[in-house]
Order: sequence, then C-alpha cells, then structure tokens
Amino acid sequence: MQSIEKIVIIGAGSLATNLAIALKNSKLKIVQIVNRTLSNAALLASKVEASYTNDFNAIDLQADLYIISVSDTSISGVLEKLHLNEKLVVHTAGTIDLQILKSISQNYGVFYPLQTFSKEEIVTFNNIPICIEANSVENESLLIQLGMRMSNNIQKINSEQRKILHISAVFASNFSSYMYLLANEILSDNQISFDILKPLIHRTAEKIQTHQPKDALTGPARRNDTSVLEAHLNILKEHPDYQEIYKLISKNIVKHFYQS
Amino acid sequence: MQSIEKIVIIGAGSLATNLAIALKNSKLKIVQIVNRTLSNAALLASKVEASYTNDFNAIDLQADLYIISVSDTSISGVLEKLHLNEKLVVHTAGTIDLQILKSISQNYGVFYPLQTFSKEEIVTFNNIPICIEANSVENESLLIQLGMRMSNNIQKINSEQRKILHISAVFASNFSSYMYLLANEILSDNQISFDILKPLIHRTAEKIQTHQPKDALTGPARRNDTSVLEAHLNILKEHPDYQEIYKLISKNIVKHFYQS
Repeated sequence: MQSIEKIVIIGAGSLATNLAIALKNSKLKIVQIVNRTLSNAALLASKVEASYTNDFNAIDLQADLYIISVSDTSISGVLEKLHLNEKLVVHTAGTIDLQILKSISQNYGVFYPLQTFSKEEIVTFNNIPICIEANSVENESLLIQLGMRMSNNIQKINSEQRKILHISAVFASNFSSYMYLLANEILSDNQISFDILKPLIHRTAEKIQTHQPKDALTGPARRNDTSVLEAHLNILKEHPDYQEIYKLISKNIVKHFYQS
Repeated sequence: MQSIEKIVIIGAGSLATNLAIALKNSKLKIVQIVNRTLSNAALLASKVEASYTNDFNAIDLQADLYIISVSDTSISGVLEKLHLNEKLVVHTAGTIDLQILKSISQNYGVFYPLQTFSKEEIVTFNNIPICIEANSVENESLLIQLGMRMSNNIQKINSEQRKILHISAVFASNFSSYMYLLANEILSDNQISFDILKPLIHRTAEKIQTHQPKDALTGPARRNDTSVLEAHLNILKEHPDYQEIYKLISKNIVKHFYQS
C-alpha cells in the first residue's frame, strides 16, 4: 500500500466523530461507520458520507485502514467480532497496549490524538498531538503519513509512554475540568455567576504555555498562607467532599514547595 | 473628592506590582510605594515613577487613595502601623472582611482583582473582574469610577460573596495549576516533554468559556470506565501522593455523575 485512502471507523462516540470528520476534511474517504447502536452509526455516517452498519459480518473489507475508536471497556468485545486478516488496524486508546491487536491482524498500530473531544463541538486537528505506534516500520510510516495530513504535531510514542501520557492528560485536563465544575458548584450555591471566573481560567491555562508549571502556580497554599487555608476550610465545612479535596490538594502543594 | 487621582500603594508583591503598573497605565499617579523590604519598594517605585519608603511614619498623606496589597498574614501588622484618619483606604484580599479597615480610617473599601498574577509578567486589566465593596455609597462610587478606568468588568461584591469567590478561584485556578504541575512531574519522571500537553490544556480552558462545566468534563472517571481507572492507579503505585489525589478526584467525579 502506498498510502491510506479508504477508512472504516468502528465506534461513533466523541473521539470517533471528531476523527471521522477531521479525516474527511483531510480528503480521506470514510467508507463505513460500524457501531453497536445503529442510530449513532447512521448519524455519524451522514456527516461523513459513509455507509453504516451494526453487523460486524457486514464490514467492508476493501478499506486501507480500520480505526477502532470505542471505550476501553468495549474494546475486547469488539475484537472478538473482528476478523481483518492482513488489513491495517489501529486503536485510539490511551491506556491499551499495542499488542492487544495482534490477534486480529498482522498489521496493527495505535493512532491516539491527545485532546478532549465532544460530539457537539468538532475541533480542528491542526495542532493536536497525534501519538503513533505500529508493529512495523512500514505501518508506522503509513500512519505517520496519515497523521501529517491532519496535524503538524505527530509523535512516535510507545505503549508504555502512551499510558504515562494518558495519566498526565487526565490530571491536566479532566481533573482541571473537575476543578472548574467544583468552582461552579460553590458559586451556584451562593447565586454567583460562573462567568466571573472565565478570565481567570483563561489566563491560568495561557500562563502554562510559556511558564514552568512550578512558576505558574499562585494562591494561598503556594504562599503557605495558613490563615487563608484555615478560613477556606471553615467556609467549606458544610460540604465535606469539597473540604476533603481542598485539604488534600493544599497539603500536597505546601509539601511540594516547602518540604521537599 | 471628585475622583481618585493620586495613590499610595502599600506592598510590592505580584498583585501590588501588576496593580501599580495598570493604574499608572490608566493615567493615575502612583505617588509612593510603601514596603517592609526597601529593595522591593525601590524596584516597583522605579517602574511607576513613584517615591518609596519602608517607614510607615513617612507615608505621604496627600494621596486620594491608599491601597493595602500585602499577604493576609501581614495585613494586621500593617494595619497597626497605619494612621490615615479620613483618607480612603482599600485592601485587595479575597478572604478578608471589609470591616477590618474600620479601625484605621472613616473611609474604606475593597478593590479585589480576580486574577492570577506574577511579578515577571505584567497583565492588562481590561477584562479582569474587579470586585468592589465600600463603607458608603460615595466611596463605592469613587472605587467603581477608578475600576472603570482600568477594566470593563466591575462587580459589586460584598465580603461574604468575595470569600466564596476566592475559594472558587482557588479551585478553578490554583488547583488546576497544580494539576498541570502533577502532569509535568509524571511526564518528567518518564522523559516526556510537557509541551505535548499544551494544546490539550489550552482547549480544556477554552471549552469552559462556552460550555457548562458539567458538559465540558470528559475522561475515564466521567465515563465511569473502571478498567482505565484501575490501570491508572496501578501505574501510579510508586507515587502514593499522586495516587491518593487521582483516587479522591476520580471518586468524586464518579459520585457527581453516577450517584446523585
């Protein structure tokens, strides 16, 4: 195979949706969407002008690449139903080893875009790091070429590194998002609009683009300002969950800057 | 007083520095910087063409406004040394009550810019929410006018609301920053550059500008994907501190979305 042109996508969730649309926008042909829930398959297929099915025996075997983009809990069920012989197949998961695909094809790899996705808002892939791994130099090269049609940020990342990357992404993105959610809960309880925090959130994330994380951090725990820390814990006393999180993170910030 | 024109700033930390420069850029006159450490006073004074002192008895009493911008732990020490009679005085702290200033003047207020500041990078105040409170309608009006010379985002916020706002800002900004720091630690331990996370961090903070926090959150805990959660905890087992934070936050995310 000279290059990947025709693609089957297995899955129709947030990542599958963003990926399918980005691939189509990069002039790749999405030939088929395969998904357990037929209505979701149909919806995504309509967006990328593909056929669709929920029957694994009806998979189009004429494509150049099969992308499995389903949740980690679903992947083993999907693999049991897939028989792709020598077809190139990749998964898109952060924490799953490359070798899991060994049983279903002789050509396999990983195509893991490091970003937070939602179905409702389609993002461009231009700067998104796409982490690539493959079972052979040839397959790696095919996947790198494919990635470069979508993004200028292609990274060769092995399975061990990818797991580490995925955990760090959970901290940096998912847990930050949860901190925004907690802030919103605390404000809502007191009839204050979340809008007032938006410039602060924007600036906090911008700061990290040019500063070391240890230099970007401010606030009472960073200053070891025990009077503020105690006052905050006292104000949170009606919410033991928030208090526990506040206490643990503050303790670790103080430890990081004052006891190491 | 028709409007505030001449200002004395007490403090020379990150907030005092950003505030002094923003006020000067808004055509206000900074007449004096007062600070315990004289070298820091001199440094800031040179940036805003002000005089400076570390002697509280040498404070210029001809200014229109005195801004106390010191840490919460230092403020009571500063207040003991200040005698401003009827001069308008404000503090800039999130968690300190307006009434703490009652003992040093008959005219007092709060001027609290909700942002993360560092001395090294001066930010513009255009969109920064400035939270204002005062002991009289006249003083409130003077402070609002002053704020509007710097920012288009002026908010009347009382002491109780301000405390809540400050806690929510700690979650949204300081704790998010700490999540970036943890991600960086995990990556550094594995010789992976933090740069790879920057597009993700940028997008996570952008998403919250237009989405509800509950809709912006993704990731394994949001999906209650127990296989990934367990795999991550296992990978973190050499780092009990990171593991404890991962466990607590994930538990709360699962609880928030699946048990409420």
